[in-house]
Amino acid sequence: MSAPNRATLWGRVLADELVKGGLDAVCIAPGSRSTPLTVAFAEHPEVDVYSQLDERSAAYFALGRARRTGEPTALVCTSGTAAANFHPAVMEADRARVPLLVLTADRPPELRNSGANQTVDQVALYGDAVRWDADLPEPEADERKVRSLRTTAARALAETTGVEPGPVHLNCPFRKPLEPIAVPGDVPDSFAETTAGRGRDGPFVDTGGGTRTLADDDRHRLRHALVAADRPLIVAGPADPATLATLEPAAVADLADRLGAPVLADPLSGLRFGPHVGGAGDGDSRTIYGGYDTYVPALPAPDVVLRFGASPTSKPLRHWLRDADARQFLVDPAGAWREATFTATDLLAAAPETVVDGLLETVTAAEARSDDAWRDRFDAAERRHWAIRDEALTADALEAAPFEGAILASVVSNAPDPATVFVSNSMPIRDADRFARPRAAAVTMLANRGASGIDGIASTALGAGSTTDDPLVLVTGDLAFYHDSNGLLAVDRCDVDATIVLIDNDGGGIFHELPIEAFDPPFTDQFKTPHGVAFDALADAYGLEFERVAPAAFADAYRRSLERAGTQVLAVEFDSEASHRRRDELETQVEDAVDAGLESDRD
Amino acid sequence: MSAPNRATLWGRVLADELVKGGLDAVCIAPGSRSTPLTVAFAEHPEVDVYSQLDERSAAYFALGRARRTGEPTALVCTSGTAAANFHPAVMEADRARVPLLVLTADRPPELRNSGANQTVDQVALYGDAVRWDADLPEPEADERKVRSLRTTAARALAETTGVEPGPVHLNCPFRKPLEPIAVPGDVPDSFAETTAGRGRDGPFVDTGGGTRTLADDDRHRLRHALVAADRPLIVAGPADPATLATLEPAAVADLADRLGAPVLADPLSGLRFGPHVGGAGDGDSRTIYGGYDTYVPALPAPDVVLRFGASPTSKPLRHWLRDADARQFLVDPAGAWREATFTATDLLAAAPETVVDGLLETVTAAEARSDDAWRDRFDAAERRHWAIRDEALTADALEAAPFEGAILASVVSNAPDPATVFVSNSMPIRDADRFARPRAAAVTMLANRGASGIDGIASTALGAGSTTDDPLVLVTGDLAFYHDSNGLLAVDRCDVDATIVLIDNDGGGIFHELPIEAFDPPFTDQFKTPHGVAFDALADAYGLEFERVAPAAFADAYRRSLERAGTQVLAVEFDSEASHRRRDELETQVEDAVDAGLESDRD
Repeated sequence: MSAPNRATLWGRVLADELVKGGLDAVCIAPGSRSTPLTVAFAEHPEVDVYSQLDERSAAYFALGRARRTGEPTALVCTSGTAAANFHPAVMEADRARVPLLVLTADRPPELRNSGANQTVDQVALYGDAVRWDADLPEPEADERKVRSLRTTAARALAETTGVEPGPVHLNCPFRKPLEPIAVPGDVPDSFAETTAGRGRDGPFVDTGGGTRTLADDDRHRLRHALVAADRPLIVAGPADPATLATLEPAAVADLADRLGAPVLADPLSGLRFGPHVGGAGDGDSRTIYGGYDTYVPALPAPDVVLRFGASPTSKPLRHWLRDADARQFLVDPAGAWREATFTATDLLAAAPETVVDGLLETVTAAEARSDDAWRDRFDAAERRHWAIRDEALTADALEAAPFEGAILASVVSNAPDPATVFVSNSMPIRDADRFARPRAAAVTMLANRGASGIDGIASTALGAGSTTDDPLVLVTGDLAFYHDSNGLLAVDRCDVDATIVLIDNDGGGIFHELPIEAFDPPFTDQFKTPHGVAFDALADAYGLEFERVAPAAFADAYRRSLERAGTQVLAVEFDSEASHRRRDELETQVEDAVDAGLESDRD
Repeated sequence: MSAPNRATLWGRVLADELVKGGLDAVCIAPGSRSTPLTVAFAEHPEVDVYSQLDERSAAYFALGRARRTGEPTALVCTSGTAAANFHPAVMEADRARVPLLVLTADRPPELRNSGANQTVDQVALYGDAVRWDADLPEPEADERKVRSLRTTAARALAETTGVEPGPVHLNCPFRKPLEPIAVPGDVPDSFAETTAGRGRDGPFVDTGGGTRTLADDDRHRLRHALVAADRPLIVAGPADPATLATLEPAAVADLADRLGAPVLADPLSGLRFGPHVGGAGDGDSRTIYGGYDTYVPALPAPDVVLRFGASPTSKPLRHWLRDADARQFLVDPAGAWREATFTATDLLAAAPETVVDGLLETVTAAEARSDDAWRDRFDAAERRHWAIRDEALTADALEAAPFEGAILASVVSNAPDPATVFVSNSMPIRDADRFARPRAAAVTMLANRGASGIDGIASTALGAGSTTDDPLVLVTGDLAFYHDSNGLLAVDRCDVDATIVLIDNDGGGIFHELPIEAFDPPFTDQFKTPHGVAFDALADAYGLEFERVAPAAFADAYRRSLERAGTQVLAVEFDSEASHRRRDELETQVEDAVDAGLESDRD
């Protein structure tokens, strides 16, 4: 059936080709100018359509979905400021390498910069935050133009999932009629929307992006250094979605074991939680370490480091690595220089899984010269870290000295297997780093750790949850909860359930960790910013259940929520200043214990 | 007292120079990297500081303030996605010529593109939506650098308020310490923050932007055409803030009177309401016309048109002008080509008030050759339009056939004198255009009519209200209310009271006016998008009073709210489809009446 007019044709061809190329979900914010795209996606039988009313939340929802799956997710909006509302999520997608395909409808070219209503300059709107952008030609039932459109669709998908995945922007001008109204002569009956001269049914252009692998001499160099190291170390920072999907945690653990190298696993690395975390229970692994944030400053420095992923969340770890006099190999699938302490000695452009597999083919445990005492020290420090944490988590201890980190500890250790746990920026991710113990369960922990904003947290979490049957848990502070409260509408509109853990310290708790705390004013009014938002009413506005929970009662309330359908907000109030003091106390206890252990090792 | 360190010095100098240059308000979103700016503004005695937690809302609040005053308002945020959240308001400020000064904190240059946390490319972030942007050098207690900083501050203010006012972006890198902590040697005791070799106390650079005025021959050409016209017309579209502040409505009315030219006054023109709207009461002016949206298609075309402002809100008016075989002079203070029907024959770059004053100096009523019947027809049509509207507004009529336009009619006719009335996009501004009768009261009507988004409505309104003692009224649809519900926090945080009129038709009522209404699916799910947000709970979350009001009871509830302190949300539910039908009925009645009038004129 030929399209009733050229705009409809254009929308259909674009949607058709994107879906043929593998796109399976699109997030649409309502608008008029985007009607040809909206109608085409809505009538396509093979794509999931999510409708969102706030474009900023829509973009983060799509980001969350693409982050969880590693697969492209599309976004559609109308012209004007709608497109600018996508900008924060596009930035995050850029930094975090998330394949986000942004389709912005636009007015026809002659209306640009003409003073026409709702018309802004949308060409290259996101600057260098996108991998590729194109301003589509005007729709027309022209064979060559349609071939170009199909090719552009294939290229857009390939660019979002290229060597460095990320956002792509297609600006799509349309003129009226935008609706599927018949315009006689606009699209000839004989016009074939499909592909001439292809003789096959798949995408118009199949693409194969390839994978970067090490040259032989680089692999030998790396292998030699690791095998010869006294104190080898593997540091896994936050992983991008493609690495999360391809890197085999068990292979990394196997390699680490052969090398005698502890793996310091960021909570976002994909390595801290999972079946590869061996042993009888929590923390028994002799490979995967999670408590390093408190104890690495007390340990001797490594001499050879193999690093994957982005910069670790832990600042003590980053500084320890910076100050180590070590050979540091940074492996990055795109060969990007993502290392802001400027300590890496070798930058290797290769997909991490190919590097791990290549080493596993040749490295044997027998030849690795690492010092047994090296890993023993990590073991001892790790045991002390979790023992001290566990003492702080007993009901009595929590009653006496509640702290926000206890919530992150409980969220992870009591999470179902499997589960997706999305953690907000600012304090929650830092507390997860310090207090979420490695666990032999398929806990997928995610965060917006590319640009580290707190502006789209609920939406990103719900987007991630929309694409999996895992129970979804979101841990957020009160400022982030407020910032993206619009995103909560997706619970109903997009049919996602979650347990939302709201750590409510009425303002920006993280500022208590900064020197500005000593300057009040302006500390309270301009930094801490207590706001008094009634979160119970806010939850009610979006039909969510709301419960206030005392810190010591959290674990029970959390388990009950996980057993129930629907979405519950569990709000736990804290005094952020007291929380920070307790964090510091626990840090000192671990440091003292590790120092004492080192002393006794020396005796 | 010299600054404790270079970052503090830099923040102080920048704040000091901006305030000396006339800046009197800044809107700050909390963050760490921006600490030097936040502290400097917070401790400055001569600037109002507003604290907002969501950067998108913060930006719109600042936009609202600058829109209402025509004076620059500054914005401060931390690095990362925070800056991208300003983008929608920057776009609106660009299109609407609002002097918005955006200060984004950034990490030091060596961390750009290094993989460092919360670090994105912020240089030239807003593309061509800003009048000017600069990436500041790193802070240093260096005489020449500080002179450059003071000069940059002066230039930034001058660029926001230049011939075409608009947004300006200064990207401000800072390194730690960001707090006012003493760093010995960082700023020599002898270092003078103030200006050497100036011998005066004012701004470092005084700027004088000048005003564009017509050349003599252009003025003669315009004068000649207007005086010689049979059917002269003045069309005043939405005015930018500078024009609102300078154009004298009484002068325009005087000129129109001498020329025998009706003034078709957009509700955003600054000309529809005010003491210059003469006569004994509503609608008695023989100069200012407001009902044209329904009747111009039935009237003969003008032969000479003098146009001020942006493209009129009324589509029938735009089309009528497009199809007129007329000389059309478009006067724009920046000489911009803001005329998307491409019908203007003459583009005159001059400040409107200078053109009006120039004509008043020479034009006399005696020489104007306009046809009396021309203005009589407008008078008759205008009378019929308001008479039919008034019949539709009686309690009985509203009981039988409620429609959204009745709310806009009541909001304006019952507004206090003076009042600031902010009207959302989509249907409210269109209903204001059609149903808000010219009135001899100082009603300042504002809207985000630059890029026409619905994403920052509450914030813009509250920002406008923060700067005046006028009672503030906001009229918004439910989607816009939801979209910027975060902005409602400013009622408490920024101490602004308002009467918020929420026209609740549970979704995008405007789509009923578009052909897509006939295609369901996807009409309901993807366009109309009923959402079921519980607005009473949402208001409660921000401590606002909430009342549901029947359409026929609205005027009373509105008057009660205006008499009370605090902020009330008056929610009036409508069936948007029925509202549209009623609009169409009234339009047909007016058209028929005007046609009948024209017939009888001919008899």
